[in-house]
Amino acid sequence: MISYPKSVKDLIDQLSKLPGIGQKTAQRLALHIINMSQAEVKAMAGALVDAKANTHYCKRCYNLTDEEYCGICKNSKRDFTTVCVVDSPRDLMAIERTREYHGVYHVLHGSISPLDDIGPDDIKIKELLTRIGSESIQEIILANSPTIEGESTAVYLSKLLSSFDLKVTRIAHGVPVGGDLEYADEITLVKAMESRHPL
Amino acid sequence: MISYPKSVKDLIDQLSKLPGIGQKTAQRLALHIINMSQAEVKAMAGALVDAKANTHYCKRCYNLTDEEYCGICKNSKRDFTTVCVVDSPRDLMAIERTREYHGVYHVLHGSISPLDDIGPDDIKIKELLTRIGSESIQEIILANSPTIEGESTAVYLSKLLSSFDLKVTRIAHGVPVGGDLEYADEITLVKAMESRHPL
Repeated sequence: MISYPKSVKDLIDQLSKLPGIGQKTAQRLALHIINMSQAEVKAMAGALVDAKANTHYCKRCYNLTDEEYCGICKNSKRDFTTVCVVDSPRDLMAIERTREYHGVYHVLHGSISPLDDIGPDDIKIKELLTRIGSESIQEIILANSPTIEGESTAVYLSKLLSSFDLKVTRIAHGVPVGGDLEYADEITLVKAMESRHPL
Repeated sequence: MISYPKSVKDLIDQLSKLPGIGQKTAQRLALHIINMSQAEVKAMAGALVDAKANTHYCKRCYNLTDEEYCGICKNSKRDFTTVCVVDSPRDLMAIERTREYHGVYHVLHGSISPLDDIGPDDIKIKELLTRIGSESIQEIILANSPTIEGESTAVYLSKLLSSFDLKVTRIAHGVPVGGDLEYADEITLVKAMESRHPL
């Protein structure tokens, strides 16, 4: 059986390392890339290297930045007494898109997951404790993902933080706005019932 | 509203140019790439540039190759009197995977599609005619995709080729093996009925 030329195969292998990109998609992308102009391919390759070279973590909150501190930590209008803990920069961006949160963040870069060999020391928990020691934080909002790993990390953090003089809260679970009750899963519905509140 | 650092935004923009990669997927891929090691990112960027630089079309059949002729055209055991016309190298690979076809190919690199401004001169049709003039081809199998564009291209080619002393065939339409008749669309079923043959 014949196969693609070596350099195409190498590209397919590289692309299929990306999350959610299987062999078939990698093939489709590789053939698209080969049909792009030389300049376009160089621009794309350059963007890969540049993004890796210029991006690092914010010294305070571990969000992505190309400077010392990220745009949020540099903004003096933000409320530095409230820290929202998130799993990833993508979750941070999701909260920013609401335009309703004015505090700052702490990005953990992962969740505790014993099955994947990720323990408390593998994510930015130590760094959060350091911040609690040096900054005047009043509330920590745990916005970890509503997955098993996220929940465990939130529970772990709430226990760890109970010894500090801090308000520790967890974002609410419930039925999504605009969603159909009928399609909500059982656990979400139970949580929504438990967290019911008077109108 | 805050956004990603410029180099990350650039990478997201570049990735979202790829087919089937929207803004959300591009974001996910970009953040994955930033979490890869510097060496891994360089290898991936290098693979992009190398694949583009080293890959070109086979001089005879326009399949992808990193040499003058592709592996199929270089294989003297193949039957050079039978040419299978395909839309893309991916379709060629799909037929090669069957291990049942021993002829050679001609890759058109597209289908005639007036809506996308792709005419007969924009795909490798002239090149096919040149081959018919210079090689001793006996049969042309039209394996264009079973899409509207592919069908039109096949019809166009069959008319064009009718003036030559050649057998011109089209791959059969019908219900896929292992598929459920119930789920086959109407047009496929009609074609399958029309092409029925005695057992």
